[in-house]
Amino acid sequence: MEPTSPSAIARLAAVQNHLSIQPCFHRHAIHNYKPTGPADLARERANASFKVEDMTEVILRGKENVEAMSVAYQLIQRDPDLRMREGHHYDLTRAEDREQTMRQIARTIELKKQIKDPRLRHALLMAMNSYSESYAMRMYVHDMLFKQALMLFGTAERQDKWMDDIENWRVIGCFAMTEMGHSSNLRGLETTSTYDSSTNEFVIHSPTLTATKWWIGMSGETATHTVAICQTVVDGKNHGINWFIVPLRDPKTGRLLPGVTCGDIGHKSSRQGLDNGWIQFTSFRIPRENMLMKWASMTSEGEFTPSPNPILSYATLIPERFTILGTSQVILSHALTIAVRYGAVRRQGNQDEQIMDYQTHYTSLMPGVAFVYMLNIVDRELFDKWNEVAEFAQTDAGAFMREIPDQHGVSAGFKGTLAWYATEILESCRRACGGHAYSSYNSIAGLIGDYGVITTGGGDNVVLMQQSARYLITALKWAQEGQKLVGSVSYFNNYKKILSSPKTSFQDPRDLLSHEFVVDVLSWACAKMTTELAAILTEAGKTNFDQAWNANQTELVRLADVHAWRYFLILYQRGIQREKNTSVYPQLRQMGQLMSTFAIHKHLDLFLEEGYFDGSHAKLIRQLFLDQCKALRKDAVPLVDAWAIPDFVIKAPIGKYDGNIYPAYFATVTAAQKSFDPPSYWHKYAAPLLNAPRPGAEKKNCKC
Amino acid sequence: MEPTSPSAIARLAAVQNHLSIQPCFHRHAIHNYKPTGPADLARERANASFKVEDMTEVILRGKENVEAMSVAYQLIQRDPDLRMREGHHYDLTRAEDREQTMRQIARTIELKKQIKDPRLRHALLMAMNSYSESYAMRMYVHDMLFKQALMLFGTAERQDKWMDDIENWRVIGCFAMTEMGHSSNLRGLETTSTYDSSTNEFVIHSPTLTATKWWIGMSGETATHTVAICQTVVDGKNHGINWFIVPLRDPKTGRLLPGVTCGDIGHKSSRQGLDNGWIQFTSFRIPRENMLMKWASMTSEGEFTPSPNPILSYATLIPERFTILGTSQVILSHALTIAVRYGAVRRQGNQDEQIMDYQTHYTSLMPGVAFVYMLNIVDRELFDKWNEVAEFAQTDAGAFMREIPDQHGVSAGFKGTLAWYATEILESCRRACGGHAYSSYNSIAGLIGDYGVITTGGGDNVVLMQQSARYLITALKWAQEGQKLVGSVSYFNNYKKILSSPKTSFQDPRDLLSHEFVVDVLSWACAKMTTELAAILTEAGKTNFDQAWNANQTELVRLADVHAWRYFLILYQRGIQREKNTSVYPQLRQMGQLMSTFAIHKHLDLFLEEGYFDGSHAKLIRQLFLDQCKALRKDAVPLVDAWAIPDFVIKAPIGKYDGNIYPAYFATVTAAQKSFDPPSYWHKYAAPLLNAPRPGAEKKNCKC
Repeated sequence: MEPTSPSAIARLAAVQNHLSIQPCFHRHAIHNYKPTGPADLARERANASFKVEDMTEVILRGKENVEAMSVAYQLIQRDPDLRMREGHHYDLTRAEDREQTMRQIARTIELKKQIKDPRLRHALLMAMNSYSESYAMRMYVHDMLFKQALMLFGTAERQDKWMDDIENWRVIGCFAMTEMGHSSNLRGLETTSTYDSSTNEFVIHSPTLTATKWWIGMSGETATHTVAICQTVVDGKNHGINWFIVPLRDPKTGRLLPGVTCGDIGHKSSRQGLDNGWIQFTSFRIPRENMLMKWASMTSEGEFTPSPNPILSYATLIPERFTILGTSQVILSHALTIAVRYGAVRRQGNQDEQIMDYQTHYTSLMPGVAFVYMLNIVDRELFDKWNEVAEFAQTDAGAFMREIPDQHGVSAGFKGTLAWYATEILESCRRACGGHAYSSYNSIAGLIGDYGVITTGGGDNVVLMQQSARYLITALKWAQEGQKLVGSVSYFNNYKKILSSPKTSFQDPRDLLSHEFVVDVLSWACAKMTTELAAILTEAGKTNFDQAWNANQTELVRLADVHAWRYFLILYQRGIQREKNTSVYPQLRQMGQLMSTFAIHKHLDLFLEEGYFDGSHAKLIRQLFLDQCKALRKDAVPLVDAWAIPDFVIKAPIGKYDGNIYPAYFATVTAAQKSFDPPSYWHKYAAPLLNAPRPGAEKKNCKC
Repeated sequence: MEPTSPSAIARLAAVQNHLSIQPCFHRHAIHNYKPTGPADLARERANASFKVEDMTEVILRGKENVEAMSVAYQLIQRDPDLRMREGHHYDLTRAEDREQTMRQIARTIELKKQIKDPRLRHALLMAMNSYSESYAMRMYVHDMLFKQALMLFGTAERQDKWMDDIENWRVIGCFAMTEMGHSSNLRGLETTSTYDSSTNEFVIHSPTLTATKWWIGMSGETATHTVAICQTVVDGKNHGINWFIVPLRDPKTGRLLPGVTCGDIGHKSSRQGLDNGWIQFTSFRIPRENMLMKWASMTSEGEFTPSPNPILSYATLIPERFTILGTSQVILSHALTIAVRYGAVRRQGNQDEQIMDYQTHYTSLMPGVAFVYMLNIVDRELFDKWNEVAEFAQTDAGAFMREIPDQHGVSAGFKGTLAWYATEILESCRRACGGHAYSSYNSIAGLIGDYGVITTGGGDNVVLMQQSARYLITALKWAQEGQKLVGSVSYFNNYKKILSSPKTSFQDPRDLLSHEFVVDVLSWACAKMTTELAAILTEAGKTNFDQAWNANQTELVRLADVHAWRYFLILYQRGIQREKNTSVYPQLRQMGQLMSTFAIHKHLDLFLEEGYFDGSHAKLIRQLFLDQCKALRKDAVPLVDAWAIPDFVIKAPIGKYDGNIYPAYFATVTAAQKSFDPPSYWHKYAAPLLNAPRPGAEKKNCKC
């Protein structure tokens, strides 16, 4: 067959260009005997523009913590009760994963007593959290949810009764909030606690199937107690939701108490080592004292005193939402370490380039790397502030009341915005590793599974973004009424000035490198959107409020996103001021600048639509974003190295520190294979097909 | 504690508004005894604006196919060799999943002989493909990859020798292209086939570790043969890549042949029932005749005749890439059926709304529903065209050569663009199901896992998008040279006119409902981007070409995306013309209009940046998009019903047809639990903690 015209020949030549089969295998053959990966990573490290150790000190907050984390990782790697004993994590059955996780917990409880240095004790927990998501979640459920609920809602006397048992896991606690039919909407919860004054007891009951407590971590197999949130009914009157300590299992036998039914939630997207479960209560009686009565309380006569302010019961949700920053940092740092190292080792293309040098590759990964640094820095800012506010609760009620709305608004908006972007980064990591991310042994798929619970759990992101938007609408109203706002919305104090300021006419993209300029741009966008949306909602009036809200839901969510990015950038900028005297401050600043451009770039259509920027500005912004990603790409490998996560924690051969990835990957795969004999199903189902007589063939074995 | 100022009280009131604990559980209690789900779905169905049966006929191409599919599903559901025997699919171990998949294959081979109606035979395969992704992939590897390679590259004589064995699975074939170190770059493949004229044999050899054939479906445990792509070396000269039939296992024993090492790839993100594997050849000899010599050939003396045109060897990749439309349709239709039904049944919020009525909810799901319809309609257009082109290969070489570049360009761009959007839809489905998507038993997580291989496998999307962009740049050059272009780029014939046409000044958003208007807009964008990018690349010249390409890679990928959407919309519009006389044509048209707006909306920043639209246009477009999604939401449930996927195939209780989801979900979870006794690890690791003596407590059992 021959082409029939010169133009057809030209076309084919062009297509062949894509599909050329010129052999170039010799080059490959050479670099596979002498693998290029280690040399590539060594070169990337030699070219680092900063000292990796200095960056690690910033990340871990000082040299002593770096040392402690290093020892903690040694402890894990050496102790057969802490580490994975054989094979790869993703080959564990659910039962094996559960056993391993509980074994790790039992061992850390022992170690807690043995380790005298509080810094190392803390480091061990941090290192274990990085090593195993299931472990982290079990500890979180017991320590953060169960214990914190007792601390926040329980009286001192109740705390005294329980605390030592909790610290030493003589009780195993869980946190029963979510129900099968109700998650983000606490008002809709159905479980009841009905007071029986004749016995001085509450009767805990799940009146319907949808009232079944659902997803409750550790209720599946291990928890002996739970804190349960229930509608509190006294003399036929519902006093709303309160918290109760409810025993579930006999600690001697592990068997369920009569009146309590718990089961296992079964197979999940990930975190198989955590026994998520469900709980049904059937007229199960607990002493009145098991109600957590620090705020709301009830006498034995059934006299109910409500909490002085319901917000107190919810304050615990605020720091919980802030933990998104820590969780995201762990999961993203693993995924990005893998993707960045693989990107620097893998070579593909006409010139056998490191794939990390492709524009689409580094622009998809480098903002993610910078984002992890932001999470790390902003995390500290948030918790420092939260601890200050929580302290007010004991010392200065007025200050507490002034601060809490903003804490609530920030926690909701951050949880939504940051978790959504984190999800995008994980997908970028997956794609950046090509087909090899499809292998469980390279961990990316498991990390994505782990993270799957974050955007919908702990408050659905869409719901939280609307809470944040509602806070902004309300805050603007306060500002319009002349109140002085604090925290993330303090810029609304000047909303008139912001709105009347002229639209930008910047010519020099370097303006965008100014933190102040970027904040101004984002402030303008938020003030404008908030003003416009508030006007629409006001016009709708009370009766049509819900309808008007829903008709503008997409814009309200967008507003919350822009506002969250604005404040995230501000907190980062504030946070790195503490590091001004470190050698790595220039890199921290550089990442902040990249992410400023990222935030503007993300909402470019908004600025174009509102005429704040024109087409030529947009082109400058796009180009600046590409340039900044390219500049940061030079430090890609050192930046992930600085997170200092050991290979055995990352569990992904293609993300190995030394870059000699292929032998490690192959060894992992072959080690996982228990037998090279044909599997039993081969004999049952493949052999009969393969050895069926051909039609017309002599029936050699036929004796008929 | 009391608030200290009126403003503080006002703030708290606002926050309390988010967090109100007004009890509203009675309403829930009622609707849980009389579940609202079935009534909700019934109402949605009663309000359908079209006849679901008529839509199903369009989707399945006629009443007879609908009937055949229904019987095929019955066959599966009743036959214990085809169906899942007990429990839920995601509780199978890898070994059980493998056995089940091979059992299903053996049974369908038997059934193929028993079923005389070719329509039912075909329907059974379609239904099984929908029922099991692992089954579908095993069949695909054997039938589409292995067999097709023989058909396309093998001589008639070789085909005669093998075809009956292949049809009846007396050989089990696989397709060894990808290597550990090389995927999208075929030129870099390392496996060699070196001719030994003294024995008239090829020696197949994997010279390095990275040469290991990797991810090869069915090589892990079952395949007896493979088609392997190898660098062909004759007398020390490399003639480039060719295809060879290479035996792997003894069909009598299932054992590996000496010189062949295969292993299992192990645990993956999904599709555990498919035995992906790896293969290493160590000086393994095959007869010369096992080279597939329809195009390239070699005599026993080692005289090598290259293929008349290398494109022939690659033509098979084109229809393979088009299969993305079918695969995506299966996976997305499952996920969207689940998400849409759950969205209509789940109630949450102030007024206990169906969550499907929230703007962010329906705008995230309805374009996905319309997209699946587009995949279905465009699939037929593509294969009709491809079959015509493939026919030319035998009858009209000139026509074949004229058409093949466009087929190549379209297949590359569609694979990239459509698979990326499909990935977004799956993530939307996951979020739309909230926490319940995290349970494996609701299948969404598994579907996401299954789809994970698509965006990077079969040609990495980023690479394919660049192939498409390169084709566009080249096609523009042809147009500039005065050649007449065909297919997806035929609009470049008028590129001058397109570029000189005035920018839009539409005032009425209904203009956007015109297919012609939307195509004009997108044509303008593509012509402009292509012209500008071509100029940049031309200016860079040959020496700087790669560098200039990479500096504009993001824009090139964006160009490919806009172009692909443009042609996808055109093919859909063409495809639904065939349905003009059906009762559901208005709905098909409505979905096309929504997706036209979607495509414009997706690239709104581009149009704003280029000044094609201004801010007021953008607002009209945004509003139109919301309105169109809302309009289509009315038919959400009937539109997914029309795909007619039985519950047992969807395997997700929250996506059940009857809407009574909670009892089904609970039954699935409890059925999966084998024992309610404490697990063995409880005795080993939990009990010792729980029953450790309290400090200072009397040591009751101490006998010392």
